[in-house]
Amino acid sequence: MADTKAITFYDLQVSTGATISPFVWATKFAIRHKGFDLDVVEGGFTGIAERTGGKTERLPAIVDNGRWVLDSWGIVEYLDETYPERPMLIPHESVAVMTKTLDAWFWRTAVGPWMRSYCADYRDVCYEHDKEYITSSREVMLGGKLEDLQAGREDRLAAISASLEPLRIGLREHKFLGGDEPNYADYRIIGSFLWLASLAQTPPLAADDPLRDWIERVRDLFGGLGQHPGLFTLYGLEQREGDVDPFNRQAGMGGIHKRNTGPQSTQAETQFITKAKS
Amino acid sequence: MADTKAITFYDLQVSTGATISPFVWATKFAIRHKGFDLDVVEGGFTGIAERTGGKTERLPAIVDNGRWVLDSWGIVEYLDETYPERPMLIPHESVAVMTKTLDAWFWRTAVGPWMRSYCADYRDVCYEHDKEYITSSREVMLGGKLEDLQAGREDRLAAISASLEPLRIGLREHKFLGGDEPNYADYRIIGSFLWLASLAQTPPLAADDPLRDWIERVRDLFGGLGQHPGLFTLYGLEQREGDVDPFNRQAGMGGIHKRNTGPQSTQAETQFITKAKS
Repeated sequence: MADTKAITFYDLQVSTGATISPFVWATKFAIRHKGFDLDVVEGGFTGIAERTGGKTERLPAIVDNGRWVLDSWGIVEYLDETYPERPMLIPHESVAVMTKTLDAWFWRTAVGPWMRSYCADYRDVCYEHDKEYITSSREVMLGGKLEDLQAGREDRLAAISASLEPLRIGLREHKFLGGDEPNYADYRIIGSFLWLASLAQTPPLAADDPLRDWIERVRDLFGGLGQHPGLFTLYGLEQREGDVDPFNRQAGMGGIHKRNTGPQSTQAETQFITKAKS
Repeated sequence: MADTKAITFYDLQVSTGATISPFVWATKFAIRHKGFDLDVVEGGFTGIAERTGGKTERLPAIVDNGRWVLDSWGIVEYLDETYPERPMLIPHESVAVMTKTLDAWFWRTAVGPWMRSYCADYRDVCYEHDKEYITSSREVMLGGKLEDLQAGREDRLAAISASLEPLRIGLREHKFLGGDEPNYADYRIIGSFLWLASLAQTPPLAADDPLRDWIERVRDLFGGLGQHPGLFTLYGLEQREGDVDPFNRQAGMGGIHKRNTGPQSTQAETQFITKAKS
């Protein structure tokens, strides 16, 4: 097999030119992680089957040395199997299992609730020729009119942000989900943040969210692959009277995530929980 | 340093003799994973400072070749650093980051809600001499009387079980969170299931929960380390009229977790979401 300089990559874009799909974003980072350039085939939601010659009606899809590979996980497995001498996307099977678990959690806790809070923005940012398909298909998927579903999102965004605390805890002492270097776990989750950045007309995260460091660190990889000028800001969610904290401002101050280094490290908690008797 | 045959392990037990703490359970598995035997110092919640000569008021704690090591993460790092030639608990830094993230998620979605649904059982199973401390300290931590908090749990258990779906999805195609072999990610999460098994007077999971395979596979390791006769069953939660499904019975039938292998694999979804126009 000849050395491949670029891999053909079918993009899924909105009217700004930015990629929208979380899976397509993750794949874009994955290809660059393996050291390949992207030979981008542009396009939106409609006409995928036509653009790919009937090979698929969903993206991502890539063509490498004439071989079509479909599905975001299928592509990652293909790239690691075919190019094991290049940096591994999944350096250990445990990373695959936990990435699937984390991705399923993130989808349930964040992407789903965000989709219902940004579904009209989602439609509005699409290409004109995609809007009818997106409106009708998403109204079936979400079970209501997009404007009705999105209404009142200001009452929901702080709680969605708060639910991301496990990611903040996991990343507190590490640069990437991959450790010192990023891997597919980072790309999988950043894909969902970039999906939201492709369409959000109001920010989902506070300006001082601790996740911002990690998000921007991943976006800056590969010459700023995640910094497309068409993306909207993720930061600037204002906390209103009565809103829950969008992140835990007492993180690391105690509880199960503080390390026990002896009695002096636990005595404050001990005094608190035994106060009834002191 | 002499070869260590057994590591001194300070247990945290209830009146059945079973270990209770999730962190102590995880540590027990970690020591056996490294190929060491457990030299167990038995005991309950009160008197930890006395048993350990003032070294700590929290467990786990171990003593290896005269060296005290505290804290569940501290112990894991010590074991892997000191014995790198034995099976690694954390085979890649990414496993540490994601285990911390998953553990924080599991604590928030399951352990916390279970604690509030089993807090009177928790107290009742303790040694007699621990009950006053557990009652008063847990009523401070949880903010109410244990019986009042636990009341009505039958209305909550199905939803807690349902919230574990990300773990079911992650494990669907893998034996362990570690992949083909278990690692500390498995031990960390099983510790919380075994905490619950040490005290639950009503089961938290359905008899046919897909997680059962993985839970029992981990419990069976090291000669059935997680099968102590004092443990109560985790399985047998009955679904009542109006309860949510305790797990997703349509898992793997479609949606984002089904792989795209071409148009024939996506056409059912396409027909569904475009039905308004067909």
